[in-house]
Order: sequence, then C-alpha cells, then structure tokens
Amino acid sequence: MKKNAFFIMLIVTFALSGIAHYAHWDMIAQFAFSAIAILFVAGFLGKATESVAHYAGQRLGGFLNATFGNAAELIIAIFLVREGLFDMVKASLTGAIIGNLLLVLGLSMLLGGIKFKQQHYNVEAAGHNATLMIMAVIGLFVPAVFVTSENFSVRKDEILSLSVAGILILSYLLWLIFSMITHKDILADEQAPPDHGEEPAWSKRTSVLYLITATVMVALVSEWLVGTLDTFSARFGLSELFIGAFVIAIVGNAAEHSAAVMLAMKNKIGAAVEIAIGSSLQIALFVAPVLIFVSTLFGQTMDILFTPIELTAIAVAVFIAQSVSRDARTNWYEGALLIMVYLILGIAFYLV
Amino acid sequence: MKKNAFFIMLIVTFALSGIAHYAHWDMIAQFAFSAIAILFVAGFLGKATESVAHYAGQRLGGFLNATFGNAAELIIAIFLVREGLFDMVKASLTGAIIGNLLLVLGLSMLLGGIKFKQQHYNVEAAGHNATLMIMAVIGLFVPAVFVTSENFSVRKDEILSLSVAGILILSYLLWLIFSMITHKDILADEQAPPDHGEEPAWSKRTSVLYLITATVMVALVSEWLVGTLDTFSARFGLSELFIGAFVIAIVGNAAEHSAAVMLAMKNKIGAAVEIAIGSSLQIALFVAPVLIFVSTLFGQTMDILFTPIELTAIAVAVFIAQSVSRDARTNWYEGALLIMVYLILGIAFYLV
Amino acid sequence: MKKNAFFIMLIVTFALSGIAHYAHWDMIAQFAFSAIAILFVAGFLGKATESVAHYAGQRLGGFLNATFGNAAELIIAIFLVREGLFDMVKASLTGAIIGNLLLVLGLSMLLGGIKFKQQHYNVEAAGHNATLMIMAVIGLFVPAVFVTSENFSVRKDEILSLSVAGILILSYLLWLIFSMITHKDILADEQAPPDHGEEPAWSKRTSVLYLITATVMVALVSEWLVGTLDTFSARFGLSELFIGAFVIAIVGNAAEHSAAVMLAMKNKIGAAVEIAIGSSLQIALFVAPVLIFVSTLFGQTMDILFTPIELTAIAVAVFIAQSVSRDARTNWYEGALLIMVYLILGIAFYLV
Repeated sequence: MKKNAFFIMLIVTFALSGIAHYAHWDMIAQFAFSAIAILFVAGFLGKATESVAHYAGQRLGGFLNATFGNAAELIIAIFLVREGLFDMVKASLTGAIIGNLLLVLGLSMLLGGIKFKQQHYNVEAAGHNATLMIMAVIGLFVPAVFVTSENFSVRKDEILSLSVAGILILSYLLWLIFSMITHKDILADEQAPPDHGEEPAWSKRTSVLYLITATVMVALVSEWLVGTLDTFSARFGLSELFIGAFVIAIVGNAAEHSAAVMLAMKNKIGAAVEIAIGSSLQIALFVAPVLIFVSTLFGQTMDILFTPIELTAIAVAVFIAQSVSRDARTNWYEGALLIMVYLILGIAFYLV
Repeated sequence: MKKNAFFIMLIVTFALSGIAHYAHWDMIAQFAFSAIAILFVAGFLGKATESVAHYAGQRLGGFLNATFGNAAELIIAIFLVREGLFDMVKASLTGAIIGNLLLVLGLSMLLGGIKFKQQHYNVEAAGHNATLMIMAVIGLFVPAVFVTSENFSVRKDEILSLSVAGILILSYLLWLIFSMITHKDILADEQAPPDHGEEPAWSKRTSVLYLITATVMVALVSEWLVGTLDTFSARFGLSELFIGAFVIAIVGNAAEHSAAVMLAMKNKIGAAVEIAIGSSLQIALFVAPVLIFVSTLFGQTMDILFTPIELTAIAVAVFIAQSVSRDARTNWYEGALLIMVYLILGIAFYLV
Repeated sequence: MKKNAFFIMLIVTFALSGIAHYAHWDMIAQFAFSAIAILFVAGFLGKATESVAHYAGQRLGGFLNATFGNAAELIIAIFLVREGLFDMVKASLTGAIIGNLLLVLGLSMLLGGIKFKQQHYNVEAAGHNATLMIMAVIGLFVPAVFVTSENFSVRKDEILSLSVAGILILSYLLWLIFSMITHKDILADEQAPPDHGEEPAWSKRTSVLYLITATVMVALVSEWLVGTLDTFSARFGLSELFIGAFVIAIVGNAAEHSAAVMLAMKNKIGAAVEIAIGSSLQIALFVAPVLIFVSTLFGQTMDILFTPIELTAIAVAVFIAQSVSRDARTNWYEGALLIMVYLILGIAFYLV
C-alpha cells in the first residue's frame, strides 16, 4: 500500500471509530468500526516501532514498544481496580501474560519461521528472560501456597501481597539498570547486516513522535473496542473470565502483536522476542505489583492471589515459552507449538 | 553367538511359546517359555533396527523403531479400551512413558557410558525433544487442573478431552513434517565415522522385511506373556496399578529396550535417545490421544484425566530426563540417576 | 588487617564466647560475644579453605569446604533427632538448602559480580549440579505426593521413606565416584591464570590443619550461638519454623557463607558455586537421608515427608538457582534475583 493511502485510511477509520463511540451509535456498528480501525492504528504503531528500533537498537526498541503497549493496559486496569473489579483485573493480567508468551511469540516464530528457516538472537538475553519468567512465576506462586495451606488472616495476606509486590518491582527496576546500563553490551543482538538501501522512512525525531501518537491512538481504539464487549459477552454467552483472559487480552495486545510479527518477518526476531517476552515480564513484574499498591491507595488492597487455573495457565505458558526460547534459535514449529498450547488454554477457559 | 545358532534359538523359543499359549499349558510354563522367547525376538528386533538404521540414518531409524515398538502397545491398548478398562489403559500408558524415559534411556546411557567416557548427539534434536516432552506434560496436566478445580460436568470433560487429544495429535503430525521434511538436516546426527569393515549383515530389503517380522513376533510374544500376568498378580499380591505401570510396561518395551541399549553400546547414542524419548513422546502425543478417539467410536469416551500419582510420575520422569538430555552429552552417571528415579517410582507404585 | 592482629582477635573473641557460654553469663552477653566470634572464626575458615583450594583445585576444595561446613549441621541435627524434634530438624534442613542456594549463592554472585562484570565456571559441572538438584527435589516430592494422595499406612510410609533415603545416599555416593574419579577432568574448572606473586600464606600441611581447626571452632561457636536463640524467639515472638528455617540456617552456614563470598570476590566463582550448591546437595542427598536411618537406630523412624510450604520453598529455590547457574556465567543481577527470592520466602515464613 502506498504511504499516503495508508495515512488516509488510518485517519478515516480512527475518526469513524471515535465518532461511533462518542455519538453512541449501535453497538454492532461501534464494534465493526473500532475493529477495522485497530488494524490500521496497530499497523501504524508497528511501523513507528520499527523505525525507532532502527535508531535505538533492537533491544531498546523492543523495550520501548513493550512499555508503550502496556501503558494502555495499565490505564484500563487502574479503572477496573478503582471499581473493585479485582477478579477481572487478574483475569486480564493472566490473559496478557499468556497472550504475549504464547500467541504473540508463537505467531512471530511461526510466520518468521515460514520465511526464514532458522532465526537467531542473543543467547544471553534468552537466558535472562527465562530466569525472569521463573521469578515472575515464583512471585505469584509462593503467596498462593502459603496463604492457602497456612490459613493466613486477611491482614497477613495483605502484608505478604504488598511485600512480594515491592520485591517484584525492585527486581524489575534492577533489571532495567542491568539491561540498559551495566550489561547493555552483553545483551545486545549482534549487529544485523545493514539493510542495503533500506533507509528508515522517517527521521529519528519523527519516529519517536509517531511512536507516541500511535500508542495513544491504539489505547483509545482499544478502549472503544473493549466498551462494546459487554454486549457481546451477553449475546454469545461468554463468561467474564474468558472475556478478561482472552478477548480483552487479544485486543489489548494488538499493538505488540502486529509490531512483533512484522519484525519477525523482517528477520529481526530478537526485537520480536523482546516485545513479546518483555511485555509479559513487564506485566508480571511491574504492572501487576503496581496495581496492588494502587488498590491500597484506593482504600482496599487487592491481594496477589491468582486462582489455581490462572496460576496453571501462567506456569504452563512460562514453561513452554522458556523451553522454546532458551536456545536463542527459533523456527516455525516452535511457534506452532506455542499456539497449540494457547489453543488448549483457550478451550479450557471457554468451558469454565 | 553364531548367526545360525541365533536363528535356530529364535524360531524354537518362539514356536514353543506359541504352542504353550494356544494349547493352554500350565500358566507357569506359559510364562517361562514366553519370557525366554521375548529375549530372542527382542534381540532379533534390535539387530533388524540397527541394520535399517544403518541405511536410513540414526534418526529415521530411531523413529521407525519407536513406531514399530509402539504398534504392539497400541493394539493391546485398543483391546483394553474396548473392554472399558480405562484405568488399566492409563496405568500402562504411564508405565510406557516413564519406562522409556527412565529405564530404557537410563540403561542406554549407563551401559553406553561405561564403555565410552562421554557420548554426544545432536543438540538441536535434544532441545526439541525437551520442548515436546513439556508439551506432553501440559496436554495431560491442564485438563486435570481445570476439571478438578472447576467441577466440570461430564459433558465438558468430554469436550475438553477430545479437544486436547486433537491438538496433541496435530502437534505430533506437525512434528513429523518438521523433523522429517522441513528441518531434517538440522536435526540429523553428524555423520558418525564409517564403521571400518563393519558392513551391515543384511541387504536393505532384507533388513526392512526382518524389521516388520520381528515387530510382529515381539507383539505376539508380548501378548502371550501379558496373558499370564493375571495369575501372577493374584499369586504375588500385586496391584493392578503396579502390573499396568511396571510389569506390562517393562515387558511391552523389551523391544525398544534391547534395540536402544545395543545401539548405545555401539556409540550410536543419538539413535538410542531417539528410540527412548521418541517412543515416550509418541505414546503421550499420539497413542494416548488416538485411544481417546477410539473410545468414542466404541461408544464411551475415555477422558484424558490421569490420577495425581500418574501425573506426578510422568512429570518427574520428564523433568529428570530433559535435564539429563538437554546438553546432548551423556555419561554413565546420568544413566544411573534415571534408573534411581525409576526405582523410587517403582517402590512407590508397589506400595500403593 | 595485619595477620597477627587477626589471629589475636580470633583467639580473644573465641575464648570470650566460650567463657560466656560455660560460665552461664546473661543470654544477651552470650549472644553478643558469640555473634562477634562467629565473624572471626568464619573468616578464619574462609582463609583456610582458600588456601586448601589453592593446593587441591577449586572443585575438591569446594567439596571439602561443603563437607566441613555440613559436619557441624549434621551433629546438631543428630541431637535434635535423638530428642524426637523431627519438625525442627526438617525446618532446619529446608533452611540450610534454601540458605545455600539463595543467600550464599546469591551473595557470592552479587558481590563477585559487582567486582567482575561476568564470571565463568565449568559448564559441565553446572549441568550436573542442575540435574542433581532436580533429583533432590524428586526424592523429597514423590513420597509426599504418594503418601498424601494414597493414604499410606504408617508402616508403608516408613518403608517408602527408608527406600528413598537409601536411593538418595546411593546417588550421592555414585556422584562422588563420578566427580572425583571417573570424570574428574571433565568437571574441572579451567586453570585460572596464575595469581602473579600471590603465594598462599600457608604450607599445604598447615592449611589442612587450619581447615580442620577452623571447622571445629565454627561448630562450637555456632552451637553456643544457637543455644541463645530460644530466649530470643520468646522475646521477639518468632515461630519455631522461622527460627529453624532462617535463623539457625543463616548462623549455621556462616562458614560456607564467608568462604564462598571471599572466593567469588577473588574471581574463583567456580569454587564459590561448588560450596553453595555442593553444600545444599549434600544436605538433600546425604545429610537428610542419613538422619532418617539414624532416627531408626534411635527407635522411631523420622519420615521423609516435608510440609507443603517446605517443599514449595525447596522447589522454588532449586528452580531459580538452576535457571541462574545453568549457563555457567554469573553476574550481579543473577545474584540479586536469588536474594530477592530468599526475601520473599523469608517474609512468608515469618508470617506463618
């Protein structure tokens, strides 16, 4: 598609979706317009990320993308926390984690792997990602076991949840220091051969500006789309858990999704992995703990206890993703396996 | 042993075992004859596999062996499913998985490792095997958690079991495409140095013919032997679970057993690993799911829910086996550890 | 500190601590003197170990240190077993395992990693350590699952506990044969560049003599210190579980602690890892099973069943430690993560 045509479609679909939302058109119309708009705004975000990644290096670019992608989720979740809808918050966090580890990572590996026989990325980064994933599982798992088998009081449950949340946030901040400052060079992907003649479309400054704009647009359209889901869940008889863990998570991650897959198909699998795994780590180690502190500010502490099936889903996603990603080589079959596990979990959640 | 002497013993013991079975001799006589016969038919299968592997390469040879070995088990299991003996089917599937991962793999590494200080095989294949093992555990584990903690109805349990079974079979078929077609070269063991002067005993065609013949003979003798076990379990006070998970599994895997160990002792550890791990993966990802569909055809769907101790046994076997095999280097101690874990599980099952 | 000044302080603080103990001074005074003395005796042990390691090689030195460190723990535990205090024994074993895997290993990696950007050790040794850790978890986990879900009788529980204990001890003895005899060379750390001009302070014979003396001193001071803890737990309202799993474990491991950290800061991370992981493996695979047999000699068999939260703590420690150590490269962040997990477990145990 020519560049100008793309920008026109982007603006038109975005505007229509906004009008439909604010003018309270029929829910089906709202859904249709925002579903089309999300394709273009996500595509825009993908291009902007790629351009920024060109200037910033694959890892920093991936980190920026993960952060911008999760900013939207964090904002939506804070609204839910304020309403006291803790179960739906946890379901959507679970969905975001497994969606990134299984669906986003899986599609990137699958589509990238169909085009390139084998894709490589930095093996040190893979090892650290795997360890951080285990850290995330531990942080969610330990409180569940202790509170359940020792019959903790509500007060102790609160203390434990806040302590673990603090430790997870600290771990994440130290990780940023480690990966962005002290050991930046060790984790960098080897310089990919220069893309002959393929100059980035935009200047450095324009790229960053577009990245921010695109993120805001994605956040808005996601919210409009999410707003229509209640009607849908009622009409199709879907449970809140399924809506939270799958529908919201898929729509909310459309941005990471398209960006990661586009990068993978340009053989930049390192950046794609960084988006997918980085995003899920950010949710488990930063977004979820921050929400616990936020809930305390709102007057009622949300505990860090996920349900057994949520913990199972997260643990399963982490184990298969780290087994697949640990060797820092990917191919289409590894992607297919991740998607298979996502299907198993999707069916199981659908039946709940 | 001279070749002719071997063939004579093979035919004599096989014939005696068959006569004892069909003429309904005393159970102890039936047991004794079939136990002796199994040594020779398994030895025959081992030689035939080795010869086919010589022509086909280690991996394809290993796959053929695993398939032929499991054909017998599949047939026996279908009979059990038709009778509705679902618990014994699951116990024998569990036993086959842990028997291959712990006993067959363990003995291969131990005996191969006593002869050769360190044995190596393809590291890519090791990584994929590890991931597939985790996939198998996930496929068996997720339904158990969801059905138990969410009180699924029988109808939902059936839907989940059939869906997961379908996804596991699809994963296995894609794996065949991946490992036999698109990425065959990457997974191949490096060409072992040619065995100077050690020509295969038989031509390509004879080898294949012998492989099929040997498999049929093993299947028959296994069945005769299994038929005598009821009497034994009654006499020695063994539980059905122990019989299913250990006795049937050991006897039924005699073929893989002898083939794998013989290959390991010729420093073809790659083929030995392929037989042991390939066979257990085939059972978890193909045989078990197929049996679920078969049970539906017979009118009553067998669910995919294994008991907690069966799941524990499988998970434990998978974790230690993948930890040992992941680095694609083996030695006697790794083999000894696998056997130790098999002993722990054997004693625990015996006490149930 | 000058060498003579150190020796004077060592002897003075040790003597004062002993006098305070045997003359039954006030508990607070006893605590203060033994707490100061432990710093010097542990420092002495660290120097002696380092000197012995210089002569013996990093691995054997580490093994010797782990053994001498655990001798003290074994003796204390035997006294507890004789009194029938099985729960406190298991709590202190749990504490020793997680203390070594998380705190000792974590501090070594953190402090060594602040000084050196990346530290390396033998990758074969790392792989085997990881497998042995999984073996230890299996040995503790399988009996718990079987006994709980199958309602084993006390008699069966005893048989299973003794069998598993025997298998774990056998695994450990085979490991010594493997690592010290048949595959010694494969597991050795590559010769570190010779420390220019840094000659060991003591002769070989003096080093060994000092190692033994220092171990005895550490054992004595640890015991004196432990004796004061009852009063403390009462005054500060700490549970026996927390005292057993954290306070006793930290004090009892002061020796491994200081030795490992000092080695890590001299870039001998291989020896530090060997002390930390080797010590926890020795406890899980040797000390714990031996205690079960010892309890049988005293007339009442202690079973091998740990509580769910103890098993969770051990499993969590093993998973994060093996994820961190598997690649045989360490840095400050990996150390920090281990300490974070230790903090999470510490807070959880404190709240019980």
